[in-house]
Amino acid sequence: MGSIDEALKANELYAQNFPFADSPKVPARKLAVLGCMDARMNIERILGLEPGDAHVLRNAGAIATEDVVRSLLVSNYLLGTNEVMIIGHTDCGALGLNDGELRERIERERGATAASPAQFLGFSNLEANLGRQLRTLRAHPWIPESISIRGFIYDVATGRLAEVKTNRPAITTE
Amino acid sequence: MGSIDEALKANELYAQNFPFADSPKVPARKLAVLGCMDARMNIERILGLEPGDAHVLRNAGAIATEDVVRSLLVSNYLLGTNEVMIIGHTDCGALGLNDGELRERIERERGATAASPAQFLGFSNLEANLGRQLRTLRAHPWIPESISIRGFIYDVATGRLAEVKTNRPAITTE
Repeated sequence: MGSIDEALKANELYAQNFPFADSPKVPARKLAVLGCMDARMNIERILGLEPGDAHVLRNAGAIATEDVVRSLLVSNYLLGTNEVMIIGHTDCGALGLNDGELRERIERERGATAASPAQFLGFSNLEANLGRQLRTLRAHPWIPESISIRGFIYDVATGRLAEVKTNRPAITTE
Repeated sequence: MGSIDEALKANELYAQNFPFADSPKVPARKLAVLGCMDARMNIERILGLEPGDAHVLRNAGAIATEDVVRSLLVSNYLLGTNEVMIIGHTDCGALGLNDGELRERIERERGATAASPAQFLGFSNLEANLGRQLRTLRAHPWIPESISIRGFIYDVATGRLAEVKTNRPAITTE
């Protein structure tokens, strides 16, 4: 049996005793979380979140892409969230990902096209990358300054979050 | 106490008895899931997934954006996933979202800028939107035909998934 069919069987069990019919559409904790897609990170479990508590956004590397900004604006303006966590993690697949090498491999296997994506957004330093994502969101003209945005590194070996502090100013001159 | 600090307290408990130190980086089920950011959808719980099982990608509306394609290519090529589920859901915030109205509101409150995102990607029909996302991924020249891509609607009132079948050809002439 394939993994999708296996997941569908698990869903049948889940739906048989479903206690979340009244979970709110508007996140009860007014929280939005951006995390990596990594298989080891169950965001809700890591943070003790129940259905109805928080929006969860995830992509490769927990990068503040245009798609993430789009989703956060919907979350902030239409559904009232006012705190944002960005969660990177140790041993991330995007850490050391070489954009050029991956592009060359795909073009070799599939042909060179003008296909998106333009970049794969690999990075070489976990904390520095997280700092960039924090600054991207804090500097965005459409994300209100009243939204609290904080960044963390999740340790996949211990399950523990550690905060990464950055200068509050949106753009530093370092 | 704010929601982030509350989540950090929950994380301390989570890390005190952490049984997932040996979860694999390469998803054990070779599965990637694209779901909506909606607070009511705990993707792992809905599908019976444990840490280490599957990549989880989430954004507003479960839309196959450039960022999602980027993440899926990393997932497929570098981490070996070969099945993809897209999961939309009933009562989605993007259902009926009027792009122009949201943009006008944000510009009124924050000022008109050339800021991204270009679009908010609201839609008017759940199944038709899901069909579009399936076709986008199936037609992408860099996603191998060997990857199984299937689409589902999650019912937030029952916890149940229902498959949305579409024509297999990537681009229909309907």
